[in-house]
Amino acid sequence: MPEDSVDKPNVVTCTAPVNIAVIKYWGKRNEELILPINSSLSVTLHQDQLKTTTTAATSRSFQEDRIWLNGKEEDITHPRLQSCLREIRRLARKRRNDGDPGVESTCLSHKVHICSVNNFPTAAGLASSAAGFACLVYTLARVFGVEGELSAIARQGSGSACRSMYGGFVQWIMGQQDDGKDSLAQQVAPETHWPELRILVLVASAERKPVGSTSGMQTSVQTSCLLKHRADSVVPGRMVEMIEAVQRKDFPAFAELTMKDSNQFHATCLDTYPPIFYLSSVSHQVINLVHRYNSHYGETRVAYTFDAGPNAVIFTLQQHVPEFVQVVQHFFPPETNGGQFIKGLQVAPAALSDELKQSIGLEPMSKGIRYMIYTKAGPGPYVVEDPAQHLLGSDGLPKKTV
Amino acid sequence: MPEDSVDKPNVVTCTAPVNIAVIKYWGKRNEELILPINSSLSVTLHQDQLKTTTTAATSRSFQEDRIWLNGKEEDITHPRLQSCLREIRRLARKRRNDGDPGVESTCLSHKVHICSVNNFPTAAGLASSAAGFACLVYTLARVFGVEGELSAIARQGSGSACRSMYGGFVQWIMGQQDDGKDSLAQQVAPETHWPELRILVLVASAERKPVGSTSGMQTSVQTSCLLKHRADSVVPGRMVEMIEAVQRKDFPAFAELTMKDSNQFHATCLDTYPPIFYLSSVSHQVINLVHRYNSHYGETRVAYTFDAGPNAVIFTLQQHVPEFVQVVQHFFPPETNGGQFIKGLQVAPAALSDELKQSIGLEPMSKGIRYMIYTKAGPGPYVVEDPAQHLLGSDGLPKKTV
Repeated sequence: MPEDSVDKPNVVTCTAPVNIAVIKYWGKRNEELILPINSSLSVTLHQDQLKTTTTAATSRSFQEDRIWLNGKEEDITHPRLQSCLREIRRLARKRRNDGDPGVESTCLSHKVHICSVNNFPTAAGLASSAAGFACLVYTLARVFGVEGELSAIARQGSGSACRSMYGGFVQWIMGQQDDGKDSLAQQVAPETHWPELRILVLVASAERKPVGSTSGMQTSVQTSCLLKHRADSVVPGRMVEMIEAVQRKDFPAFAELTMKDSNQFHATCLDTYPPIFYLSSVSHQVINLVHRYNSHYGETRVAYTFDAGPNAVIFTLQQHVPEFVQVVQHFFPPETNGGQFIKGLQVAPAALSDELKQSIGLEPMSKGIRYMIYTKAGPGPYVVEDPAQHLLGSDGLPKKTV
Repeated sequence: MPEDSVDKPNVVTCTAPVNIAVIKYWGKRNEELILPINSSLSVTLHQDQLKTTTTAATSRSFQEDRIWLNGKEEDITHPRLQSCLREIRRLARKRRNDGDPGVESTCLSHKVHICSVNNFPTAAGLASSAAGFACLVYTLARVFGVEGELSAIARQGSGSACRSMYGGFVQWIMGQQDDGKDSLAQQVAPETHWPELRILVLVASAERKPVGSTSGMQTSVQTSCLLKHRADSVVPGRMVEMIEAVQRKDFPAFAELTMKDSNQFHATCLDTYPPIFYLSSVSHQVINLVHRYNSHYGETRVAYTFDAGPNAVIFTLQQHVPEFVQVVQHFFPPETNGGQFIKGLQVAPAALSDELKQSIGLEPMSKGIRYMIYTKAGPGPYVVEDPAQHLLGSDGLPKKTV
């Protein structure tokens, strides 16, 4: 066997999506295993607009495990990275020992090189860790020949990452066991189930860096009595209602529950001591705008939700997008010209009536929103077959273009 | 008897204070009687800085009940005004029928003229209705010769008005009865109990008119499940803790509970659907400032509380006022010059160390605070003996100077 064949790395590249929770996850009952205090539910966003791409390679010639994120080498000893690596290798060993022929037994003793990039700026304030850890776990599983349920491993990288392991509408069942084996993500409906649903990410001009979600939720669990009540007594009923709303494709029910749950999550942040503010004055204006827009039409056409930052994620149906985009542009006159303001899917032109503008009646807030990303629900992670897309070269190092 | 003596009005002038809740009232179980869903506790502010003055006059010559508020005649048929007038007259009749010699039986059939002014601008965003209705009820009781427990009547004008019937530290016991007879204010400690306590009202630059508290709390009761939990399961324990903190003059305990309760009140506003925002970006900055200031010293020296608007009310001890005022002026550079920025009690000069400024480390927010009022806890309503202070002339009409 010629030497170049022996040392040729085993390389896999995969992509994974961002997800946006409509029933929010906030608070862990076990910090190390990342077990939540309540179940949650999210919509997986389409990877045409927002995705992480990860290449993993194993080779006998690699001296140590290494990782590059968005072009910069990072510390592989990070505990959450180590959790994912350890769990994948453990599963691979278990399968080999069980005699599974699919496991690449040779590479089990090899070191791994990992390279990962997002196709969206971190500054967009989207929880890139969910897509990142989902992609890491999905890719590692492929490179080590592991199959089956992987969401419990992704969960140990970043809680919400488990929901990025599936497309469409995904619930993270909190589970009851102490070892977390029943704390898993599960698809409620595929992305094809509700083709009219559309999503707009409104990227707000950040005023300052908010409190990180890991430390934020720790403080909330320790200090907010409203959070405990929410987790124990409110969320279980909302999970049932939300799954039913998705299954029925009942937009008003889906939208109202989404808005109420976002508001309640931010309420528990405010009940935290010291309080945490993720909503800015721009977020407040988006919330008022959506309620006034719906109220003008006498029906719930648009919903907002906010994660641990000021950016709004808007849900609506395809037919309402052109007008609502005009509304956003009117009440948040953009800094850039129109062409750059909307990224993603194509938006049809639309008129904006004076009646609607007057009915909303807010003072326009210049430059409050930097740009928006127009997308829809999309599929879960997948393997990229084209070797030209690998982020690691044959030397096992990031390609120059990365 | 000469005619001028017969028609000479029976005139009384009283003043009443503003109060600031440290355990918040939000939500009624009975809209008409104004019965709350939880007990609350407030500090009465000193009338040297903030007060309402009310003159009431009865005369055989008056054709109808009339009222002037801050120089403008208002509609006397307002239901809450009528509740107070009716209850006072009913009590006066009952006492006369019981043979009480103190009751001015002649004036019971007379019409009343009422004139009321605040010594602070409505724009200050302080709940002027509490001082206003407390003063109205206190003054009417004097003019009709009624004595005894009056807080249940003031409560029917404006819920929090019942707490302005006493000085110092006052609880409003929610009561259990359907007729509201046990929903009363009670003094926990007089203003002399804690002489070092100081209060700063930071009047924020209002961005827009917020949702009124009457309709706001109605919506909250109807839609917020966190509010119900707060009222039923959180506030009862906090009332006990707050009364103990006041009795012990334990500033850190008083301060932390005050901040937590303000935050929880605003959390329930955010959990309301549609959500209500009373805190502005200026309020957020004040909150962050206070936590960072306390954290710099490793002890709780300052507390904030916010009612249904963006203005902060700061509690601290006398010794910390000079420095904290400098801190506020540094992080909210005022529009006006220094002399006009601070109203009320005299503030001693103080230096501000670079170390403290850096430790707080916030970006200064120009003109975020318009001015501040420096005050302390004060007494309840009282009668003004000097007839020159009457707001109504001998003709029963507002004096020109009003």
